[in-house]
Amino acid sequence: MSDFSHLTSTLANLKTEDMYLNDFLLTWEKDDDELKATFAVADALRNLRERNISTRIFDSGLGVSLFRDNSTRTRFSFASACNLLGLTVQDLDEGKSQIAHGETVRETANMISFMADIIGIRDDMYIGKGNTYMREVSKAVQEGYEDGNLEQRPTLVNLQCDIDHPTQCMADMLHIIHEFGGVENLKGKKIAMTWAYSPSYGKPLSVPQGIIGLMSRFGMDVHLAHPEGYDVMPEVIEVAKANAAANGGSFTQSNSMAEAFKDADIVYPKSWAPFAAMEQRTNLYGNGDSDGIKALEKELLAQNAAHKDWECTEALMQTTRAGKALYMHCLPADITGVSCEQGEVEASVFDRYRVPLYKEAGFKPYIIAAMIFLSKVKDPAKTLQQLEAAGIARLLEA
Amino acid sequence: MSDFSHLTSTLANLKTEDMYLNDFLLTWEKDDDELKATFAVADALRNLRERNISTRIFDSGLGVSLFRDNSTRTRFSFASACNLLGLTVQDLDEGKSQIAHGETVRETANMISFMADIIGIRDDMYIGKGNTYMREVSKAVQEGYEDGNLEQRPTLVNLQCDIDHPTQCMADMLHIIHEFGGVENLKGKKIAMTWAYSPSYGKPLSVPQGIIGLMSRFGMDVHLAHPEGYDVMPEVIEVAKANAAANGGSFTQSNSMAEAFKDADIVYPKSWAPFAAMEQRTNLYGNGDSDGIKALEKELLAQNAAHKDWECTEALMQTTRAGKALYMHCLPADITGVSCEQGEVEASVFDRYRVPLYKEAGFKPYIIAAMIFLSKVKDPAKTLQQLEAAGIARLLEA
Amino acid sequence: MSDFSHLTSTLANLKTEDMYLNDFLLTWEKDDDELKATFAVADALRNLRERNISTRIFDSGLGVSLFRDNSTRTRFSFASACNLLGLTVQDLDEGKSQIAHGETVRETANMISFMADIIGIRDDMYIGKGNTYMREVSKAVQEGYEDGNLEQRPTLVNLQCDIDHPTQCMADMLHIIHEFGGVENLKGKKIAMTWAYSPSYGKPLSVPQGIIGLMSRFGMDVHLAHPEGYDVMPEVIEVAKANAAANGGSFTQSNSMAEAFKDADIVYPKSWAPFAAMEQRTNLYGNGDSDGIKALEKELLAQNAAHKDWECTEALMQTTRAGKALYMHCLPADITGVSCEQGEVEASVFDRYRVPLYKEAGFKPYIIAAMIFLSKVKDPAKTLQQLEAAGIARLLEA
Repeated sequence: MSDFSHLTSTLANLKTEDMYLNDFLLTWEKDDDELKATFAVADALRNLRERNISTRIFDSGLGVSLFRDNSTRTRFSFASACNLLGLTVQDLDEGKSQIAHGETVRETANMISFMADIIGIRDDMYIGKGNTYMREVSKAVQEGYEDGNLEQRPTLVNLQCDIDHPTQCMADMLHIIHEFGGVENLKGKKIAMTWAYSPSYGKPLSVPQGIIGLMSRFGMDVHLAHPEGYDVMPEVIEVAKANAAANGGSFTQSNSMAEAFKDADIVYPKSWAPFAAMEQRTNLYGNGDSDGIKALEKELLAQNAAHKDWECTEALMQTTRAGKALYMHCLPADITGVSCEQGEVEASVFDRYRVPLYKEAGFKPYIIAAMIFLSKVKDPAKTLQQLEAAGIARLLEA
Repeated sequence: MSDFSHLTSTLANLKTEDMYLNDFLLTWEKDDDELKATFAVADALRNLRERNISTRIFDSGLGVSLFRDNSTRTRFSFASACNLLGLTVQDLDEGKSQIAHGETVRETANMISFMADIIGIRDDMYIGKGNTYMREVSKAVQEGYEDGNLEQRPTLVNLQCDIDHPTQCMADMLHIIHEFGGVENLKGKKIAMTWAYSPSYGKPLSVPQGIIGLMSRFGMDVHLAHPEGYDVMPEVIEVAKANAAANGGSFTQSNSMAEAFKDADIVYPKSWAPFAAMEQRTNLYGNGDSDGIKALEKELLAQNAAHKDWECTEALMQTTRAGKALYMHCLPADITGVSCEQGEVEASVFDRYRVPLYKEAGFKPYIIAAMIFLSKVKDPAKTLQQLEAAGIARLLEA
Repeated sequence: MSDFSHLTSTLANLKTEDMYLNDFLLTWEKDDDELKATFAVADALRNLRERNISTRIFDSGLGVSLFRDNSTRTRFSFASACNLLGLTVQDLDEGKSQIAHGETVRETANMISFMADIIGIRDDMYIGKGNTYMREVSKAVQEGYEDGNLEQRPTLVNLQCDIDHPTQCMADMLHIIHEFGGVENLKGKKIAMTWAYSPSYGKPLSVPQGIIGLMSRFGMDVHLAHPEGYDVMPEVIEVAKANAAANGGSFTQSNSMAEAFKDADIVYPKSWAPFAAMEQRTNLYGNGDSDGIKALEKELLAQNAAHKDWECTEALMQTTRAGKALYMHCLPADITGVSCEQGEVEASVFDRYRVPLYKEAGFKPYIIAAMIFLSKVKDPAKTLQQLEAAGIARLLEA
């Protein structure tokens, strides 16, 4: 049986009805079948593309992107995913400011959606805001669809919020599955999601939160380590604990990078800001208190600087399983002596893992495409088979 | 006979030859058949899309957009219309400044048009400039086409100018036609286009002008009401008068919102700036007189504030035909207590009409698509039938 | 034999294998067959489009554009070329600053390329930087492709660098070929590439350099004239000399516009900045020496002003072959009394050549498309024939 046939027959046995005309906002709102289906569709779309078979399910249609922060990687991933399926991206530029809620969100959401099949939103700057905003947009377009204003229900993909970064974490997970030869090989593997020092401040919490919220579902031993005071959202800690309990793995927290790395199969060292500080910053921005913001920035940089020893060094890597843990990062990394004087990772470690790191990133467009696909087609396995049978060349070959 | 067949057979009996390879700049430059054809094509394209049938007449090609002012709604409508027909939007960003005329316009118009099928322009800021600029561009591409520089004649769609807002008003009219069950039911209906208070200043005149210039063609009683001093362009008043005389309706002007609303079947209360003040502002900008601009702004805001009683209230709505007039707005509206302290409309009125207001806006992409379609295909009825017969799925369904 | 058959059979006899999966960075890196193939594909694509036959070889895919300088013409040409072949443009905005090299370039190049078929770069501001940067990007994506990070090798098109402007010069050459009725008629023709006065400063050297580097390959007498001190890069002078020697033409340098124009068949009068000054400016920018930059600007404007007599006048045009040399320019030109008080060309000369100038510009989208085409299809002649045989309408016609 070919890889493609295997993927579509796996998919045919998964329950995905609830994904149809639905959003992808948090991985822990999706059940196991739905995650497996997302991985299967991502692999199947890639398989078709590698065989030069068109994966366009749309003859026309818009994918609306709304970025509340600068972005190159996620922007290109979303654009690639839309293009892969036949959608044209239309950017909604609202600046970086927190935009008004309520009436304005409802109206704007409808106004941009008359021909929108998908809306991708990145809103990760303000704790307590991003995911909430996405749900407001979702509610507005659902109402617009039910009221008959919108001919189709635009579905949402969370391209990073204050709570989760599902397209990143799902891509990371698919990378792990491929590296370890299948999801069935992950039981008992240890993954260390650790803080690391960076000379910049205020990096989002969505990656560490997303990682512990997702990786705890596959029977792995998930170890979250960070200096004191760098806590993530308590709600997500609860999600990780419950996941671990339900899936036969474990979830451990510590303030020791060494402990986390010890015998780890996978390490994900990355800087982030303390949850409490980000809450404080959100309030300061809300009050327009620019002196307070400056003071907080200074304080946070000083706090970071007290933890320069949190670096992914060769010595630390030696302590992982056979000294060969899979090093992961969402990129760009702060590389010591390359992108900064001292950072998250030693240059020789990063160098050694460059190819797998780029491969990791390469899963994202397919994961996003899979999320779109599953929200738009009723019978994903059959539609994939139709695409294969049609066999339209992506690039015409003589 | 199906709706679609009805639309195409209606269309087949209309004279649309002059629309082919021609622009859509002012509704009053189009004869009745041409307006009817635009409505018919808009409905037919929507009908096809609702049946998941592709409406792409273009396999490739560019739709150039040129916005001289911030825009979300119109930008998305134009992008949606282009996408619906298979064109890719390419933005021409010239900033918000008044760009040079003459030589530069001629050259730029040709340089952007080598593969442009359509050019959409929004230029509504300066009285006496926007529509004139569109005609310069049109002349330049017509010459370029005749000289053989351009392989196709890019046609223009006026996405809002200083005089008219044809895509808005045509969408508004199509909304009215649908709400009243057909254009034949509009004779004798009363529509009130009235000024309303807004705490912002300098809103364009193109909507009230476009509305009285268009709605006066269907045998309706058109009532234009505004406070003293808020006159619109005299030329457009003449257009409305002539239309009413020719089409068996009436055109009335007053300084009373109450009079306008009395027994009205349709009300369109909306703020705009006095024509004379906008002329003055254009000159001040032309002279780079920033002190003068500030003084004028202050004066206009004070003038507005003297008319806070021009608000679309529940009490006023009660005076309309059976208390149930169709409330219309081009959006966004200034809603009292929601988007501002005091504005154009009471929140409860707006709330009650939200669904029809969003529907009204939803006609715009189809109206723009229809304008493009009619300027690009020689036999619109036959081409629509071909699209239906081809029956290519817009979204692949298993 | 039809024009199209003639073009494809010509193409079938040219050696183009090395263009496949390769970049187009400098014309002098391409052999004669490769240049001829580019012209043939450009003409063939235009022929198909003029017959309303789709030239889309891509069903989906991205064309990444990276502009390090404002651009309207080149941006639209690249967008047109991508659209013509079925690619969607995705802009990479990095601002105008010189971006970091090394690690960052490698990473960014891979991150934007997961579904990129082509990368178009314009980077002409800094001497010694633009072309070098393109080669860094090329190396990065080649490695990414070999490492399996990228499923396809994105190829690069140089949309203007510090050394050459191949899309402009190849379009210029195709214009000349058409004007003179075939490349075989160019032997012994005289082309004058001359400096001309402009009131602005710092115009790129890529056009004069590209022109002498390319036009010297067709047996023409290439005359480069400029005031003392306005030298171009010495390396490119060597290229031009070697080309002339190898191809039976000549390459002459002088400081006399009159000498250059005398009996010329083609004239290309255009302002540029002295090479040495541009090197100096690059260093000043590198050192962040804004006082130095201002001083240099003042000095260069004064230097320019000493050569206001370098203008393409009617009197000079009279001295060309039969007074009828083909006047060329990459546009926009500084036209005396129109776009500036005194500039590169007299208004009446420019006016007389407007149609051919616009035609000249119109070749660029096709030249870019040909460069993309030849880097993406293995058998270009056969693929063109397939497109003709498929005969898919670009614009559906009833």
